Amino acid sequence: MDADAKKTALRMIPYGIYVLTADDHKGNVGAATVNWVTQASFAPPLVVVGVKADSGAHTVVKGTGKFSLNMLGKDQKGIAFGFFKPAKVEDGKLSGQAFHAGANGTPILDDAIAAVECTVKQVVEMGDHSIVIGEVTDAYVMKPPAGRPDAAILEMKDLGDTVYYGG
Amino acid sequence: MDADAKKTALRMIPYGIYVLTADDHKGNVGAATVNWVTQASFAPPLVVVGVKADSGAHTVVKGTGKFSLNMLGKDQKGIAFGFFKPAKVEDGKLSGQAFHAGANGTPILDDAIAAVECTVKQVVEMGDHSIVIGEVTDAYVMKPPAGRPDAAILEMKDLGDTVYYGG
Repeated sequence: MDADAKKTALRMIPYGIYVLTADDHKGNVGAATVNWVTQASFAPPLVVVGVKADSGAHTVVKGTGKFSLNMLGKDQKGIAFGFFKPAKVEDGKLSGQAFHAGANGTPILDDAIAAVECTVKQVVEMGDHSIVIGEVTDAYVMKPPAGRPDAAILEMKDLGDTVYYGG
Repeated sequence: MDADAKKTALRMIPYGIYVLTADDHKGNVGAATVNWVTQASFAPPLVVVGVKADSGAHTVVKGTGKFSLNMLGKDQKGIAFGFFKPAKVEDGKLSGQAFHAGANGTPILDDAIAAVECTVKQVVEMGDHSIVIGEVTDAYVMKPPAGRPDAAILEMKDLGDTVYYGG
């Protein structure tokens, strides 16, 4: 396989930017910026998230069987970069972001434009990232988009001309 | 769950447009426009595709264990719409598109901007679409992008102001 062709072809896949969150309510909060996300069924409503296998978020998501995906808006690049680092709760904030517990107990970022809460249906552990399959159990739109919803989300290409995660 | 919030939040996920292809070489060629695609691991290079469970493409992909994802370019809306209908091979073309067999025997559209060939690692059948996990075994870039690869691909929002598949 031509490694450059693989990189270029896979980098054609467009991505939104999300903060994945989970909380075991025993002091372990997982939160990480992710982009490998797709819907995968209408009924039941399933999403798939690629989660780094050796990450703190992976441990908490797998352990609790619950997570939320927080959608970031076009102007929230700073939040995305903030969750590239291991998450911590300090002064009631999650890596500096105000949050509240969703219906399933996972952290919802107050400033996200939207969020979906999910129950883990299966974790397929096959590579350096696990394929986490979640059923959407709740959804919130904190900042209703003026136009198309997919025009409101922060995208990988908005993070910088040379920023990629994939390939 | 608020159905409108679910729809809006899930429609924030941006999607590229791909033609999924498979061929059992016994007269059954599956080809369908898909958008529920994400990378899911670097090593091995995995992709996940949501494939309609009752589609012809699903049957051929599952039966053969091989598929390709053909990336469409910004000006290839017509090809995308062409593969919304059941695929057929006629006069050596696949639903009107010239193609050739990739290394794994799956159809590669000559006019696609890029393609990845995959071996099916697992099919998770849990909803109205199956979660097909594929390992990328070959990749081709037929039309090298001038800028970012993810700016060259046809996107869901390019298909029409009110066109969505998700939510």
